[in-house]
Amino acid sequence: MSADRLVVIGGDAAGMSAAAQARRLRAASDLAITVLEQGPEVSYSACGIPYWVGGQVPDRDRLIARTPSQFAAQQIDVRTGTRAEAIDLDAGTVRTSAGETLGYDSLVVATGGRPLRPPVPGLDAEGVHGVHRLADGADIRAAIAAGARRVVVLGGGYIGLEMADVLHQRGLSVTVVLADPLPMGQLDADMGERVCKAMGDMGIDVQPNQPVREIETDADGVVRAVRTDAGSYPCDLVVLGLGMGPEVALAREAGLRLGETGAVEVDRSQRSRSHPEVFAAGDCAQTFSRITGEAQYVPLGTHANKQGRVAGSVIGGRAAHFAGVLGTAVTTVGGLEIGRTGLCTSQAEQAGYDFRSETIEGTTRAGYYPGAEQIAVKLITEHGSGLLLGAQIVGGAGSGKRIDILATAIWAGMTAEEFAGSDISYAPPFSPTYDPVLVAARVVSRVEQG
Amino acid sequence: MSADRLVVIGGDAAGMSAAAQARRLRAASDLAITVLEQGPEVSYSACGIPYWVGGQVPDRDRLIARTPSQFAAQQIDVRTGTRAEAIDLDAGTVRTSAGETLGYDSLVVATGGRPLRPPVPGLDAEGVHGVHRLADGADIRAAIAAGARRVVVLGGGYIGLEMADVLHQRGLSVTVVLADPLPMGQLDADMGERVCKAMGDMGIDVQPNQPVREIETDADGVVRAVRTDAGSYPCDLVVLGLGMGPEVALAREAGLRLGETGAVEVDRSQRSRSHPEVFAAGDCAQTFSRITGEAQYVPLGTHANKQGRVAGSVIGGRAAHFAGVLGTAVTTVGGLEIGRTGLCTSQAEQAGYDFRSETIEGTTRAGYYPGAEQIAVKLITEHGSGLLLGAQIVGGAGSGKRIDILATAIWAGMTAEEFAGSDISYAPPFSPTYDPVLVAARVVSRVEQG
Repeated sequence: MSADRLVVIGGDAAGMSAAAQARRLRAASDLAITVLEQGPEVSYSACGIPYWVGGQVPDRDRLIARTPSQFAAQQIDVRTGTRAEAIDLDAGTVRTSAGETLGYDSLVVATGGRPLRPPVPGLDAEGVHGVHRLADGADIRAAIAAGARRVVVLGGGYIGLEMADVLHQRGLSVTVVLADPLPMGQLDADMGERVCKAMGDMGIDVQPNQPVREIETDADGVVRAVRTDAGSYPCDLVVLGLGMGPEVALAREAGLRLGETGAVEVDRSQRSRSHPEVFAAGDCAQTFSRITGEAQYVPLGTHANKQGRVAGSVIGGRAAHFAGVLGTAVTTVGGLEIGRTGLCTSQAEQAGYDFRSETIEGTTRAGYYPGAEQIAVKLITEHGSGLLLGAQIVGGAGSGKRIDILATAIWAGMTAEEFAGSDISYAPPFSPTYDPVLVAARVVSRVEQG
Repeated sequence: MSADRLVVIGGDAAGMSAAAQARRLRAASDLAITVLEQGPEVSYSACGIPYWVGGQVPDRDRLIARTPSQFAAQQIDVRTGTRAEAIDLDAGTVRTSAGETLGYDSLVVATGGRPLRPPVPGLDAEGVHGVHRLADGADIRAAIAAGARRVVVLGGGYIGLEMADVLHQRGLSVTVVLADPLPMGQLDADMGERVCKAMGDMGIDVQPNQPVREIETDADGVVRAVRTDAGSYPCDLVVLGLGMGPEVALAREAGLRLGETGAVEVDRSQRSRSHPEVFAAGDCAQTFSRITGEAQYVPLGTHANKQGRVAGSVIGGRAAHFAGVLGTAVTTVGGLEIGRTGLCTSQAEQAGYDFRSETIEGTTRAGYYPGAEQIAVKLITEHGSGLLLGAQIVGGAGSGKRIDILATAIWAGMTAEEFAGSDISYAPPFSPTYDPVLVAARVVSRVEQG
């Protein structure tokens, strides 16, 4: 009996997690695994690119977790520089840019995401860069080395903020142009304002409420400025920080069903809703809210890893389910730490919740201990039940990772009152007697008690 | 109608929380509140004393959260320098060192704890100090100012470690003498060994398995050395770090029922089991394990605050219950961060669990990000159900507070597998893609899956 054949399209977090997990459960004699990756590397950290540009990470190769030869040692056949050109779902084959046609018994589509691009003239100008592939990082580094002094970052999501931060640290003059009133649309306005103010205080020029109209170029097609209705911002470098969309051209052409978010629709085992022998995972796949059950698109490396692992487990013969997302995230800009999880107020509103919210201010350590920093914690609860729906944190060093305490409480389905009574650690170098996350829970549950 | 009378004995965390919460719920016209405090201050941070000794906190007054006059503004009559000499439970009165007899309708016993003292000769010598009252901190600071160079710390619990750390930082030669094989008896041996090694590496002399036999003194009754069966350790200062016991002399003499731990036995509303008009809270009160329900004695400021608040709520007319303890704690020694929560393996064994445990090693940030530190995470689960029973963390900066993520998962009654799928934040400056706490959960749940 010949081995089953698994083909994986895309060799980053989701694809390689699927391949590695399937291999753990099934030997090469039982399952042949081929991974097609159009780029030169697999398993690289896209999330690390800002810090390579910023110089915190000195060496590009440090962003590469594992190499094709390491996978080869596990009998996973990784083909870099090889595009999947087309999927024939009826025949069960994938045609590659190398001219081969590979048959599969199981297929994992892990084509990832792509940086969102505003539909404006000039976006293909020289000097406009996404932050997606290692090559993007190399291009931005090269632009800085060649003397770039002024950068416009389009958008204020995680990548936008991180790039603004590291480019500012490298001494560039940074302008962040936002279509929205505030950066970090994943936060409520009161928390976004704290981020916006901190960015201004550190010398980053934030221009809100200005959808970009044009990337102006010089005669050689090199970027010269970003134009909005309010003005023109001269620059020699433009970074796209507008977020990511699913890369689904291949899936769509093949006829895989896409969901309402535009990403590949899958069940909780990451199986395609239309073709159960096909799995999708990571930034190309639709997922769902742990809280509401509704379809969501949340392109983050953590989910990509876990979803890939679920697909690999199922292909490997072990039942597995992805348990949903809270949209937990953490980032930092200029020393300010920002975390969020669950529903923000606009999401709670959209989902039809009657909710309450409270924001408290505290310190990260005992007030008398050196290095105690300001921290603001916002909690959103369902009115009546007191169920925790969402949390946001903005503060100094030590603030950001506290979001995980709240993410765990929300994941477990705790009420604010239950959480307020919980046994969180205390010592003066680590927190006040009542950690700010507990204070927030107590305050918001008091609203319920009247 | 005259006001009800609440008397509180002890003006630290538990007592003042009870008083403040009762006042929030009942006006002075309805409830008269008197607090008796034998010392000169109320509401001070005993946990901060090591850092005042170490110089991180420059000013003693910074350890005092609130003053008697601040409480007076809330119409809480705080009498410092006033001991409760006796409680007459039948008459409902307290006799004070000022010669008064105060009647009460409700009484809160919050007499706190006292440093444990080994039953050896010489313990009353000049130069032997607990770390309990602000006066203890002042005495130790005075000893250092007067030229103390060599200190023996007896015991390796939180206070012992913290004192060893700050005294070492101040340039004293520090020997820690342990009756046990390892410091931090609240940790399993494999984790305690990591702490012990780090202490040795930083130049603290750890002498394990040596119960102290005598405090040797000179002709003037001043400490000269600590003697064990293995040797004599010369010193000019001895610090007691053997942990705390309940201060229950007053309660015992009055006839309040004590529990199996020796502390005052209370129900979940902090009411005395023998006298329901009397409440006990904080380091003098017995509490119970959230996991097993069994009686425990866990003297920590976090519990004292919450228990005091529960008593104050009930006295204020609002139902409230203390929800138990996990024994969550965090500390640091020489930059090493240590956290623990729930059952350690010896406690799981005693409680009759069939359990599994796994320890993993990882980094606090993405491996390529500057400042990534080593972190070890140990998880203990119930075999079969996979229920999380306990967790321990030892590692570099950023490790300690991660214990709260696990404390929350245990508090909520999650299994390792459920927790392994949860949505914890990731960004390179904050964690690897899979946070070490998730890796530990995955590894220990894999043991269950075989």
